[in-house]
Amino acid sequence: MAVVKLFGAWFSPYAYRVIWALKLKGIPYEYIEEDLRNKSPLLLQYNPIHKKVPVLVHDGKPICESTVILQYIDEIWPQNPLLPADPYDRAAALFWIKFADDKLYQTDGEEQQAAVKEWLEMLEVMEEHALIGGKKFFGGEEINMVDMAFTIVAYWLGVIEDVVRLEIFEPHKFPLVSLWIQNFKSILVIKENLPDADKMFALLKHGREMMLASKSN
Amino acid sequence: MAVVKLFGAWFSPYAYRVIWALKLKGIPYEYIEEDLRNKSPLLLQYNPIHKKVPVLVHDGKPICESTVILQYIDEIWPQNPLLPADPYDRAAALFWIKFADDKLYQTDGEEQQAAVKEWLEMLEVMEEHALIGGKKFFGGEEINMVDMAFTIVAYWLGVIEDVVRLEIFEPHKFPLVSLWIQNFKSILVIKENLPDADKMFALLKHGREMMLASKSN
Repeated sequence: MAVVKLFGAWFSPYAYRVIWALKLKGIPYEYIEEDLRNKSPLLLQYNPIHKKVPVLVHDGKPICESTVILQYIDEIWPQNPLLPADPYDRAAALFWIKFADDKLYQTDGEEQQAAVKEWLEMLEVMEEHALIGGKKFFGGEEINMVDMAFTIVAYWLGVIEDVVRLEIFEPHKFPLVSLWIQNFKSILVIKENLPDADKMFALLKHGREMMLASKSN
Repeated sequence: MAVVKLFGAWFSPYAYRVIWALKLKGIPYEYIEEDLRNKSPLLLQYNPIHKKVPVLVHDGKPICESTVILQYIDEIWPQNPLLPADPYDRAAALFWIKFADDKLYQTDGEEQQAAVKEWLEMLEVMEEHALIGGKKFFGGEEINMVDMAFTIVAYWLGVIEDVVRLEIFEPHKFPLVSLWIQNFKSILVIKENLPDADKMFALLKHGREMMLASKSN
């Protein structure tokens, strides 16, 4: 049997996308936790361009970028598909995945006010465009790669809100997103594979304090 | 026969990706030029999220985002493939396409100094990682979607340099990239489908003057 290894970090939503995909497909793998302040020589060798997790190593060959990894996993192990079979539905799914990734990129490292604006725009688009039609998940009745792309909203955002002491996601304003979060978290593979919220709160709080301290000097 | 329409803008490198893909595949299509200062109701209807070109309309259904459009075209019309058939090579191609798109996003709208830094990083990665091994194109002997993703470097960057009066791409520092540009431009479908450089120079120069004027007020 092929050897599958995953280099991840316990708090990374991008690494969790790969964990969920592998678990949904029932693929056994070895997980290697990376210390991102002290990256291993293997990580730097496997991902010399971005030096980031996740990296999937399949039969000794590395694949980087979570969306690329998920498409690869879906091609190699077709059971429990992560993307629709129909080319048009597939294109629509890839559109939303790119939207989620681009938005998340924009919220990262920005000033708080600008980041909040991006979060709200993302939530509005999810509510008004991506989830319309009474669907349980973005692709219909089953979870797929689009749900995994939007996942930060379902879990990580809550911790971020606690850290910055601000309610960005007001459930009554986004009823479809709220319902989707419930559906998403009810999936066993998701529920059983999420980072510890208290540990993540401590990590993000520490990171934020460091950042604020560096700015006031 | 299915009706294919493309909404583009004459200077957009993203629209050209789609034009090249359709021409390489030999797919007839109707081209609709959009005035981006006065977008048509159809464009807004077809791409309500980003309100941008290119948009491909196939059998009345819109597909947005050039990388998504190219993957769709490749699935619907498999002749002259835009992506490798092997799943691992395919993942590698999608990795470079994402790299090019993310970098191009970073160069856009940034301060000149930061943008130049991103351009140089992009060129270095192309030279030292993506083009190694004496390949004619990124995927080997034939042009594919990766070449189309990096295309701004092959043509648009030259015009940008003229406008900002700065040499960013010094050919002797990037011999593999220089050779690739020659190979890329020697393809008939590319050569015959590029925007007019003088017209683009005038457009970019005007845009830059407007931007500088707005900053000094």
